[in-house]
Amino acid sequence: MTNKAHINYQLILEQVFDKMTGLENSGQVATYIPQLAKVDANKLGIHLIDSEQSHYSVGDACEKFSIQSIAKVLSLTLALKARGDSLWQRVGVEPSGSAFNSLVQLEYEKGRPRNPFINAGAIVVCDVLISEYRQPKSELLKFIRALSGNAKLSFDPAVAESEKRTSYRNNALAHLMKDFGNIDNDIETVLDLYCYLCSIEMTCQEMAQTFMYLADNGVNPLTGEVVVSSIEAKRINAIMQLCGFYDEAGEFSFTVGLPGKSGVGGGIIAIHPKHYSVAVWSPKLNSKGNSFIGMKVLEAITTISQSSIF
Amino acid sequence: MTNKAHINYQLILEQVFDKMTGLENSGQVATYIPQLAKVDANKLGIHLIDSEQSHYSVGDACEKFSIQSIAKVLSLTLALKARGDSLWQRVGVEPSGSAFNSLVQLEYEKGRPRNPFINAGAIVVCDVLISEYRQPKSELLKFIRALSGNAKLSFDPAVAESEKRTSYRNNALAHLMKDFGNIDNDIETVLDLYCYLCSIEMTCQEMAQTFMYLADNGVNPLTGEVVVSSIEAKRINAIMQLCGFYDEAGEFSFTVGLPGKSGVGGGIIAIHPKHYSVAVWSPKLNSKGNSFIGMKVLEAITTISQSSIF
Amino acid sequence: MTNKAHINYQLILEQVFDKMTGLENSGQVATYIPQLAKVDANKLGIHLIDSEQSHYSVGDACEKFSIQSIAKVLSLTLALKARGDSLWQRVGVEPSGSAFNSLVQLEYEKGRPRNPFINAGAIVVCDVLISEYRQPKSELLKFIRALSGNAKLSFDPAVAESEKRTSYRNNALAHLMKDFGNIDNDIETVLDLYCYLCSIEMTCQEMAQTFMYLADNGVNPLTGEVVVSSIEAKRINAIMQLCGFYDEAGEFSFTVGLPGKSGVGGGIIAIHPKHYSVAVWSPKLNSKGNSFIGMKVLEAITTISQSSIF
Amino acid sequence: MTNKAHINYQLILEQVFDKMTGLENSGQVATYIPQLAKVDANKLGIHLIDSEQSHYSVGDACEKFSIQSIAKVLSLTLALKARGDSLWQRVGVEPSGSAFNSLVQLEYEKGRPRNPFINAGAIVVCDVLISEYRQPKSELLKFIRALSGNAKLSFDPAVAESEKRTSYRNNALAHLMKDFGNIDNDIETVLDLYCYLCSIEMTCQEMAQTFMYLADNGVNPLTGEVVVSSIEAKRINAIMQLCGFYDEAGEFSFTVGLPGKSGVGGGIIAIHPKHYSVAVWSPKLNSKGNSFIGMKVLEAITTISQSSIF
Repeated sequence: MTNKAHINYQLILEQVFDKMTGLENSGQVATYIPQLAKVDANKLGIHLIDSEQSHYSVGDACEKFSIQSIAKVLSLTLALKARGDSLWQRVGVEPSGSAFNSLVQLEYEKGRPRNPFINAGAIVVCDVLISEYRQPKSELLKFIRALSGNAKLSFDPAVAESEKRTSYRNNALAHLMKDFGNIDNDIETVLDLYCYLCSIEMTCQEMAQTFMYLADNGVNPLTGEVVVSSIEAKRINAIMQLCGFYDEAGEFSFTVGLPGKSGVGGGIIAIHPKHYSVAVWSPKLNSKGNSFIGMKVLEAITTISQSSIF
Repeated sequence: MTNKAHINYQLILEQVFDKMTGLENSGQVATYIPQLAKVDANKLGIHLIDSEQSHYSVGDACEKFSIQSIAKVLSLTLALKARGDSLWQRVGVEPSGSAFNSLVQLEYEKGRPRNPFINAGAIVVCDVLISEYRQPKSELLKFIRALSGNAKLSFDPAVAESEKRTSYRNNALAHLMKDFGNIDNDIETVLDLYCYLCSIEMTCQEMAQTFMYLADNGVNPLTGEVVVSSIEAKRINAIMQLCGFYDEAGEFSFTVGLPGKSGVGGGIIAIHPKHYSVAVWSPKLNSKGNSFIGMKVLEAITTISQSSIF
Repeated sequence: MTNKAHINYQLILEQVFDKMTGLENSGQVATYIPQLAKVDANKLGIHLIDSEQSHYSVGDACEKFSIQSIAKVLSLTLALKARGDSLWQRVGVEPSGSAFNSLVQLEYEKGRPRNPFINAGAIVVCDVLISEYRQPKSELLKFIRALSGNAKLSFDPAVAESEKRTSYRNNALAHLMKDFGNIDNDIETVLDLYCYLCSIEMTCQEMAQTFMYLADNGVNPLTGEVVVSSIEAKRINAIMQLCGFYDEAGEFSFTVGLPGKSGVGGGIIAIHPKHYSVAVWSPKLNSKGNSFIGMKVLEAITTISQSSIF
Repeated sequence: MTNKAHINYQLILEQVFDKMTGLENSGQVATYIPQLAKVDANKLGIHLIDSEQSHYSVGDACEKFSIQSIAKVLSLTLALKARGDSLWQRVGVEPSGSAFNSLVQLEYEKGRPRNPFINAGAIVVCDVLISEYRQPKSELLKFIRALSGNAKLSFDPAVAESEKRTSYRNNALAHLMKDFGNIDNDIETVLDLYCYLCSIEMTCQEMAQTFMYLADNGVNPLTGEVVVSSIEAKRINAIMQLCGFYDEAGEFSFTVGLPGKSGVGGGIIAIHPKHYSVAVWSPKLNSKGNSFIGMKVLEAITTISQSSIF
């Protein structure tokens, strides 16, 4: 990794944390499944790891939460390792310009999802993983555990089963894609994997560690192993930049200026390539479904540390 | 029924039949399930029953075919008997202005289908029948057998099961509506009934008889029984007029000028209220999914007999 | 015209009129131009002319109002006389399934409006009239005066000029169609004619008379002149049935059961082919833009007189 | 500017240029106005300026071409200087997910364009400039001349007037926005400015120089003048990253990894913040409307020089 003048990230995180305490949080906790609804809405954790593998942390950074859609970056990475560029025949790399679970665009574009982070795209990626691996769930866990350095990291089956019980719309997306010939496996199996994927639990610390390969040219800094090529790491970052925040990707690029991905559990991961990976968690969501405080935390961190990619 | 100067419908049917023999048929037989694909494409049957219950017939009018979507008028009638006007909270009466199985409009309109003849609407109607009847399939058969005067009339299980195996898009529609809270029962059960409904087999003679209640103010002329009220019969005719031909309802009103309903098996039923019911069957479909020759047959019959409702 | 047992329409109209007096009118007068906004909201006129040219009238049936979109049936008739079936290359006959001035469907369907009664379709019809006639405004007035029997019937220039000043959306529709090659003349000229067309003033009595040709097989009963062929009259009725009430055509067919056309001035014309023409005027509009009381008046008249076409 | 180990960009440009000579160019020159249609399709120019203001050049880099939509970045910059963040009430910063001139999304989103680079957004920006400046065309030229260092840089009136004659769709967009209240000035005046904006002519050398402020934290390196604040420069880069390539923004981020903007004249500008600005020109466009060879040139340059922002 590129060297950089030592920045006192700990001071910045503490400063940002204090600033947030005074802020009115007009967001709402996700309530579509009980496991998310019952989370303490006032939690706030931030964890940053820099290119020299130094850790900086404030608040509830060591508490587990449901990473939800953030896991879609990990399933994409695994599918890309398996399939390479042929993956893009099944799913695009363009921003969607509409809600994360809309069927409209999917129908107009004949069942090929716009990108791997809208629900339809992540479902196609799960379909690919099922075709590739005999035990896709174990394979996924093995992959994520190696990245996180925590061999016990796992799914939350209660979350996964709840998601499955309320996943009518995802079911609609999957059936529509099957109708267009873009799902190879049994729909129930595909959605089962999708729901388990979204149920992964991590702390901010674990999340920042897990995604360090995207700040480090595709290399897992814990093991030195090449996760994906340098060029593929850049491409995943590019997709996060354009598609990582549902219908608020522009706003995030505009105010934060880093590639990132959010989840309805209130987590956000952001990457400053060659510099750092930072995870935030605050459960209340804004009207676009992204963590209200999380967005503000990242805007403050990048403003103070002057660390936009632009 | 209103009396009418005796028209020699037999002569008209024969004249129209001859005219069609010379016509090039640029349509295509439906091939999405093997049972439809293997039908003899050159079949042509026409059967008309007038207000005095006289029968007129030419060609293959006594051969069975799959009535497909035409059955949606019958399920609607049965649901309307059970629910009355409250049915319209679940499904509208407006033309759709898009393909019969599009998800776009259904998403914009929050899961309430535009009318009971597009697939989504017919699925909602099946959901209602399941809520209303312990044995909805038997109830449906009993209802249709009484109308047709044929106590053996039935489903074609091979067709129904084939439909079920290829019904990914209907599954998508059902899941999307379930997500919006507009399906009460188990989706598999609802789609099972839907597929059996579409698999009903009739001859042109049976079809013309079955739908006579819509030409006769809601009364079954075979039994004198009131099927639906006179006002409900008119309303069903009105819905057929506006929504009976997918995205070609205007064209059919324009050229034929009668309420009607078509099916991908190549059948069409048309009603001249107070005058007659006429069934046509010719398997090749035009680009909008309606019988190519069937449309022309009805245009010729109504032109020669001057029997538009307009 | 077909004879019919003499019905005492006068009694029916009075009965219906009384019934309406007690009804709460939750509609709203159109306010987008001052000339419509200042109309007395409580006006109610009804005028019916039967096949024997007998007149029946209640309320404010002899007061002038702006017929607005109802005039689109007249411009269509004139264009159809000039162009015949080739007119349908420029505009369709299908219901739109969306708002009367939406650009969405127009863009998806490459500039060919769905029918001649949505704004885009009426604009195309005006374009045709400009191509056909050296003096399209005079030609239109001459045509309508002959139908109405009133040689002084005219445009309201104040209304027309107001419409022109607020017609940004119609301008957008016209430019989009010009871009697709479906407008031949200068856009300003086309929209000028369109705005004058919509500004025509009539009384209910005049309106019922003007549209009698559609109840009488295309013949002007005042002069015996053939306005359009019998088959064309039927086709215009069919288009009114499917497209005459914006996004409420199904509702109108369902409850009234006659072909008709409404305008934002609060007028409605309805035709019972071979039987009568009836004009209603009540300025307050429902949420779909059709006269709130006007719809109820026609439902009551057709229910009492049992005069649905279905 | 950040220092960087000296890279021999000249060698890279020459290497890339040679590589392109052998490539089959399946693109098509824009033909919607004669001035673009008659351009020599085989032109190829590349010009790069690094952070030390060193220039590197190959091919037709000193030949003028019509920069077209690339100018939208400059009008945005000028409007942002005048209005600051209040500009975003009029236009968004999100990718559009549909064609650059679509009316569909604009109608759904009630006349607020998704971003300043789709046509509707650039028209709104022109409307703002007209409200802000008495002489918006001169103001724009003065602004661009100062950036480019060429005091003679100007519009091509022949191009502007041709654009005006074929701008039906832009007229439709402007009228639709006016209908929604998002255009303050006279539409003709607004579209006149828009067409002149798009007619600006530059060489690759001039273009690379003009956009250096976006590589240099908002400072014009020729004069040291602050064009926009450092944070605004980043935000403009972020918008270019997400919205600069019509419906191919993801593809460009994915393969090139730099913020950029293309025009139908075949030009592309790309910015490596803190490092360089690079202009390419090759007139043949791919199916998405971006320079076929231009995209490949930038992919090759960033791959060889390893200069992605990700």
